[in-house]
Amino acid sequence: MSQLLENLVSELAKLPSVGRRTALRLALHILRQDIESADLLAGSIYQFRREIRHCARCNNLSDTELCPICSDIKRERETICVVEQISDLISIENTRQYTGLYHVLGGVISPMHGVSPADLRIDLLESNIREMNVREVILAIPSTIEGETTSYYITRRLGQIQGLRISSLSRGIAFGEGLEFADEMTIAHALKNRTQNNQ
Amino acid sequence: MSQLLENLVSELAKLPSVGRRTALRLALHILRQDIESADLLAGSIYQFRREIRHCARCNNLSDTELCPICSDIKRERETICVVEQISDLISIENTRQYTGLYHVLGGVISPMHGVSPADLRIDLLESNIREMNVREVILAIPSTIEGETTSYYITRRLGQIQGLRISSLSRGIAFGEGLEFADEMTIAHALKNRTQNNQ
Repeated sequence: MSQLLENLVSELAKLPSVGRRTALRLALHILRQDIESADLLAGSIYQFRREIRHCARCNNLSDTELCPICSDIKRERETICVVEQISDLISIENTRQYTGLYHVLGGVISPMHGVSPADLRIDLLESNIREMNVREVILAIPSTIEGETTSYYITRRLGQIQGLRISSLSRGIAFGEGLEFADEMTIAHALKNRTQNNQ
Repeated sequence: MSQLLENLVSELAKLPSVGRRTALRLALHILRQDIESADLLAGSIYQFRREIRHCARCNNLSDTELCPICSDIKRERETICVVEQISDLISIENTRQYTGLYHVLGGVISPMHGVSPADLRIDLLESNIREMNVREVILAIPSTIEGETTSYYITRRLGQIQGLRISSLSRGIAFGEGLEFADEMTIAHALKNRTQNNQ
């Protein structure tokens, strides 16, 4: 095989859930596009990885010192939503229902993977809450064992701040989801925390 | 969203079967890797699209004037296998059963998409056959309507060359495939062209 093609296929195949077969398909697609498209793709990877930084306040990805959300004067500053990853922040933003700020942990506490509270910038979260006089912290952290540990740790630590409300996303059956696809813990939780209908 | 992230996600989402959600996952993966990995990926795309060329003899992708297959003195030069795309050539190479040369059409005849015999370099195929005294041409072209049209066209055109055998890949039930997954045409063909077992 051509060495240039081989190089590209092996680099593409390092991406998650891209096998060599898919990598080859992507390479041939890149070949069919004009040269400017390939340059744009290559350039966006190069520039992203070299120039992207983390927001000094919330740890979100940012082009500048403060991210677009922290810089937006229209966002209300009394609520901080704590998420594990950037993709969770984007999921919440896509609902257009949340107008507060964020704190991006960048992971969850995991002694096995060597992730400690210090890695999650929880000191930064705590000082932001104190400085900005935040009233509520919403924990939107996955309900895995490590996620629950992280939620517990944050709740204990921030619980010492006077007048701060700490909440978590509600759990239950997803809209449009049948019971046959929900796990037992979710069903049990949804049953116990059932909501009264308007009658 | 960060503009650098937005640029990367929209470029990645132009790739086939990559939606914005997958593109975001790829972008965050690139972020987690070290900067050298991102540079390697970007560099391989840039270099591939700028420096790759087509083999002057068989139209395969190549770094040099002749591709590694055409330059390999161990390949036998009496047989040419005609394939639609580079990926078909790679599939055949992976079997390690074929030792001849190739001709890569780069498409199939399709008046609707404006692909004519001239685009498929069939003149080049014909002059190669005459010059190199090729004895057999194996058509490994997909059995779609356009593929069959292309096979028919090539067979008619090369049929005028004295002493040249033109063949096609056998059709039938794939190894390990049950009849319930095979289409009716394939089953009918496999029945008609059944092979005698050793008894």
